Formats: sequence, C-alpha cells, structure tokens
Amino acid sequence: MTTFRSLSHRILGIDPGSRNTGFAVIDSDGKHSVRVTSGCIRVGEHPWPERLGLIFDQVAAIVAEYQPQQMAVEQLIFARDPTAALKIGQARGAVLCAGLKGGTVVHEYSPKSVKLAVVGSGGADKAQVQHMVRVLLALSETPGEDEADALAIALCHAHSLGIPARKRAAASWRDWRP
Amino acid sequence: MTTFRSLSHRILGIDPGSRNTGFAVIDSDGKHSVRVTSGCIRVGEHPWPERLGLIFDQVAAIVAEYQPQQMAVEQLIFARDPTAALKIGQARGAVLCAGLKGGTVVHEYSPKSVKLAVVGSGGADKAQVQHMVRVLLALSETPGEDEADALAIALCHAHSLGIPARKRAAASWRDWRP
Repeated sequence: MTTFRSLSHRILGIDPGSRNTGFAVIDSDGKHSVRVTSGCIRVGEHPWPERLGLIFDQVAAIVAEYQPQQMAVEQLIFARDPTAALKIGQARGAVLCAGLKGGTVVHEYSPKSVKLAVVGSGGADKAQVQHMVRVLLALSETPGEDEADALAIALCHAHSLGIPARKRAAASWRDWRP
Repeated sequence: MTTFRSLSHRILGIDPGSRNTGFAVIDSDGKHSVRVTSGCIRVGEHPWPERLGLIFDQVAAIVAEYQPQQMAVEQLIFARDPTAALKIGQARGAVLCAGLKGGTVVHEYSPKSVKLAVVGSGGADKAQVQHMVRVLLALSETPGEDEADALAIALCHAHSLGIPARKRAAASWRDWRP
C-alpha cells in the first residue's frame, strides 16, 4: 500500500457503532486526499460482548495493515438516550483501544465540524455527506452511510492538517495527543 | 500464583469507571472463595483517550499475570445521564476488550444481583458491600469502594457457579459466552 505515500499523512477515520462501524483510510497532504480503503465492520449478528472483541480485532487489523499515523473520530453528543450512549460508548472504547495500541494519535471532531468540512454546512444530512465524499475523493460509487461518515471524518482531519493549531481551536476542534 | 488453585475457578471481577476501575481476582469452588489480588486502576490524572489505553493495558496485564478463566462485570443501567453513560461505556469497552483478548469468558450481573449475593439485600449501600466483602473473604482491612465493588462482583459470580443455568436465568442473571 505505498501508492499514495507522496501524500504525507495517512489517516484512519472511524464511525463507531454497536452494530456497524464505518472505517476509512485516506492519504492526504491537507489539500489533496485519496482513498486507500474504506468499508463497514458489521457485527450486529454476534452476541453483544463478542461484538466488542470483533470490532477491536478488525480495527487492529486495519491499523496493522495500513499503518495510519492518525486516527479521527466524531465527538459523541447524546442528548436523550443513555442506553444507546452506553452501547455506542463501549464500541467506541474498543475502537480507540485498537487505535491507541496500534500507535495512532487520536483526534476528535464535533459532528458539526465534520459536516462543515465536507459539505460546507453544519446541518447537512446523510445523503449530502454521502454525495460530497464521493465527489471530493472522486469515488466511482456512492458509499453507504457508515462508510461515508468514516470518510467524512478522515477528510475533516485532513482539512485541518494545514490549519494552525490556534485556528483549529477557534473552530472548536479538539486534538487529543496521548 | 498457584496457592489457591485447589479452588478450581479463578474469577476476575471488574468495576469499570472513567477515572477509577476496581479489580479483583478470586479463586473459588462456588462455596469457598479466597482473594488472590485486588485493587484499583487510577487513570483520572491522564488525558481522556489515553485513559482507555491505560485501562486496557492494565486489565490485560492482570489477565496475563493471574490467568482468570472468567470475568464478571456489572450490568450498567443508567436512567439519567447520557454523558456519563458514554464515558463509562468507553471504559467498559476497554475492560471487556482486554478480557476477551485474554481469553476470559464474560459474565454480567445486575447491580441488584451483586448486592443480593454479598449482602443479602438488593438495596444495600456501599459501606455494607465494603463490610461484607471483608467478612466473606476474611480480609485484614476494609477495601476501598471501587475495589470492594470488584470483589463483590467476583463473589457474585462465584456464588452462581453451583447454581444450574436454568435457575440462574430465573434469578435474572445473564451469561455471555462469546
């Protein structure tokens, strides 16, 4: 997987879920981005705690194969449902552990920042996100929702690469550097 | 660590938290239980996603050193706070991944089942739990709250070892066998 290494940043975007976890690896120099791989880890058919092990394993395998230096995830903001928050939190814990164990630096962006970065509007709907990641990455097909979200998160981080940290903070993006 | 292996089950009890994660390893034959080790993983001073990596590493180290076959955690039931649910969910995801990767079978008990098992009352308070785990395991000191919760969860699972699966189900305990 050395095709796009002239674009100096390899970024893993993840959209964690207790059933479907979208993932995307892109190479970027902050201006130009190319998709390396993307898809969806589907674990909904498995019993619950086994799902966490499967998510962990599959994210770890992606990190081992594609060697991203950076991982980007959405900030999760739940206003209503604590049960859903608890489930998605556990999936997110599995994803972040796999990324951290693989040596990636974790970055987090608000859902609004992600939509702003790829669609230009913080209130964009899923179909607009799917359409715009297809256009921005010149994909031959429209990706599914979870895969598109992961691509959008990776692109959001790619767009922040050329922006000074001070301005990133002003845009309410957060960087976590463990 | 072969001292108590005549008690045929080695159980890891965990009380996950985003700051403090109680842990306890006990050996048990379902009637008699002995503490092998217990304590608290404190990560509150570290930045957030790094905490997940530390929790994962430390639980993985406990599993590698003490080789429990079974892991017991509390069912989490949050009525109110989705933000807290999301944080504790991520810590729980890290804990379960470390246990599953270490080859343990994960069991889950409701908070009420845990209190019933160690205090005899589903509405027991934390001080009663701390007192009873000290008595049941003949400890020379009263453990801290998180450590006591982990010991109680491990004891709850130990008590279920002699009970047929049918009755366990009737008592609303849940077994997860990935």
